[in-house]
Amino acid sequence: MTATDYEALPALAEEAPAPSAGTVVMKFGGTSVADVDRLRAVAQRLVTAREAGNRVVAVLSAMGDTTDELVRLAHQISRRPVARELDMLISVGERISCSLCAMAIHDLGHEAISLTGSQAGIVTDTAHGKAKIVDIRANRIHEALDKERIVLVAGFQGVSTEFDITTLGRGGSDTTAVALAAALGADACEIYTDVDGVHTADPRIVSNARKLHAVSYGEMLELAASGARVLQLRSVEFARNHEVKLHVRSSFSAADGTWIREEDERMLEKALISGVTHKSAETVYRVEGVSAARLFEALAQAGVNVDTVIQTGLEIVFSADEGPGAEDALGSLGVEWSAREDLGQVSVIGAGMKSHPGVAAKMFSALEELGIQPVIVSTSPIKIGCFVARDQVEQAVQALHAAFELERPEAERRHA
Amino acid sequence: MTATDYEALPALAEEAPAPSAGTVVMKFGGTSVADVDRLRAVAQRLVTAREAGNRVVAVLSAMGDTTDELVRLAHQISRRPVARELDMLISVGERISCSLCAMAIHDLGHEAISLTGSQAGIVTDTAHGKAKIVDIRANRIHEALDKERIVLVAGFQGVSTEFDITTLGRGGSDTTAVALAAALGADACEIYTDVDGVHTADPRIVSNARKLHAVSYGEMLELAASGARVLQLRSVEFARNHEVKLHVRSSFSAADGTWIREEDERMLEKALISGVTHKSAETVYRVEGVSAARLFEALAQAGVNVDTVIQTGLEIVFSADEGPGAEDALGSLGVEWSAREDLGQVSVIGAGMKSHPGVAAKMFSALEELGIQPVIVSTSPIKIGCFVARDQVEQAVQALHAAFELERPEAERRHA
Repeated sequence: MTATDYEALPALAEEAPAPSAGTVVMKFGGTSVADVDRLRAVAQRLVTAREAGNRVVAVLSAMGDTTDELVRLAHQISRRPVARELDMLISVGERISCSLCAMAIHDLGHEAISLTGSQAGIVTDTAHGKAKIVDIRANRIHEALDKERIVLVAGFQGVSTEFDITTLGRGGSDTTAVALAAALGADACEIYTDVDGVHTADPRIVSNARKLHAVSYGEMLELAASGARVLQLRSVEFARNHEVKLHVRSSFSAADGTWIREEDERMLEKALISGVTHKSAETVYRVEGVSAARLFEALAQAGVNVDTVIQTGLEIVFSADEGPGAEDALGSLGVEWSAREDLGQVSVIGAGMKSHPGVAAKMFSALEELGIQPVIVSTSPIKIGCFVARDQVEQAVQALHAAFELERPEAERRHA
Repeated sequence: MTATDYEALPALAEEAPAPSAGTVVMKFGGTSVADVDRLRAVAQRLVTAREAGNRVVAVLSAMGDTTDELVRLAHQISRRPVARELDMLISVGERISCSLCAMAIHDLGHEAISLTGSQAGIVTDTAHGKAKIVDIRANRIHEALDKERIVLVAGFQGVSTEFDITTLGRGGSDTTAVALAAALGADACEIYTDVDGVHTADPRIVSNARKLHAVSYGEMLELAASGARVLQLRSVEFARNHEVKLHVRSSFSAADGTWIREEDERMLEKALISGVTHKSAETVYRVEGVSAARLFEALAQAGVNVDTVIQTGLEIVFSADEGPGAEDALGSLGVEWSAREDLGQVSVIGAGMKSHPGVAAKMFSALEELGIQPVIVSTSPIKIGCFVARDQVEQAVQALHAAFELERPEAERRHA
């Protein structure tokens, strides 16, 4: 097994122990641990889960914008901070929140222990800043759980096969949580955040957006890839590959959130359309005079995530998440290229659309009524994405949410 | 060898490799790494030492008051933070300064690597908050030095025999530096600080105080114990036990500072009196109805450092550095006690006083001229300490500095 293979493996067959009844992994993001009071609330929540009989493993992010501040400090001292040292630096934020939370748990009369990524046995490759998990040696976690301790694991980090501290990149704490849930055979991985679940659209744009009770891994992948910010793509992939049930819910309420799980568990409620997502700002590059193979090799080497690709004859059009990286890669190829900065993307996602060919037609007619002309369209079996003018994105989201009647429960919709 | 024995061992005979020519350990305190600009200056200083052909190991403290702020955070979340978690928390400050400094060194065109206490192989016992070093496994440092890298070690911390992060207590970074210098067989351990060396008295109180070129380990121990703040007692003890030459000097100038080394190397310049020190605030406890054995067992269990002890019949008088701890210990004994908070201490220190019985007489008459009556007197072969009224401490320091002519070079004094 190579380092890069691990995260894509179908299951942790060899490493995972038999599922131990009642193990739960609970992950809390930066806003959920932003200050001392919120950390205390997290401690209380963990204690409640422990008192309900669970073996509790928590993964915490850094408090508020601690990590951003550390990155800023690094850029104050160096224009291009060495990756190894940047990881040493920015991995401290999660340790701070974990140790503080452990103190608060002790004050509530329970035993707790905080572990660094390294102490928790999270072994990664050596790709600093975007390391991949290659192994989880959870013996220390098991020992602590056997002693009835609540275990707090610093998210977003691990120790490399060269014994250096690594970080997992954006959304790394979600990945830590899902990987631990897989390795520990946990019943579920609960992702606590500042919203109460996954919605049919961004509630700031669509006032009657509904919280989804459940979505499939595939839908969640498309939702995350096309703009839903609640979960990082990579952690959803990891969850699907290792069959970890995710539960996205609010840190600030006890209400159920959104479950992300196998599609077949919820055939009855399989929606035609689960949600409308958007990305307000996309950069679309148009390149001529290079083969797709050479272009994508250069982009991959620069670590650029490509969203959509269209090839028409000699032209390749693609959108990329990381502008500067993409432009470095294009520069290295010595080809002609141009970039459009005036576009955004709107997508509809639903596992049910596989068997309903009318979705695209309905989508385009809803946009046409507003006079919106998609510039680029990209599709997958369960998603249709349209690049539209950046200033029309919100309007488009609202129109599509209404067209597919997403404000209504599934059963009450008049499906096209 | 037990854990507690290590720091007191006469030499690291088995662990220490043959001295490698040109290894230097350079330690920088909190004010020397207070901000990005100062960290850059430290980086430049390390590069200069490297370019002069040295194998360079640097030990850094946390930036400015980072550690104090973390401790404050811990006390915000918990009235009595668990010691293990407090160590996990407060050990991050040194990692931040080391990783930032490594980035700055890379920008100067040299290779550098930052190591946590654990990565540097600093193994301690499990006494969180005041751990003692039990072993140094320096193979990772040697590897990096062999690759011509500047090695930055996070001060003040190690990893316990239970694999937990520990901190070494007050002055811990000095201890890290001295222990590394011993283990690496370094030529010297340079302690960079915000003063330019050890003085005959505190220059803020005695305007014509002189910088000492050299003092013996024994004198430095007495100086440190009786109030000179430039070095922690423990690191001086460690240096003496392992014969590590210390050089205390300024981070802000290239001038020589003060050397601390074996007495016999500098017999010619052995001063009658090397310096006058003071502690502005001492708490003196008077206890009745308990044996010295029971009292000191209770104080030791509470981890209280006792400075001076006098026993007269049933009464034991002692001064302690840590008030609350001392009072907890006294409370646990259920005896009668009282505390005096109106005293300070003034001491004169000099290796030469061993053979000059007139020192005490001169000291008392100088104090008497000012109408100062010592309340308690404590002596060692090379120190005389007087407890005096707190508001007379500064006056006493000035008078003693003048009486022993410490403003003059050694050769020009009229010895009593």
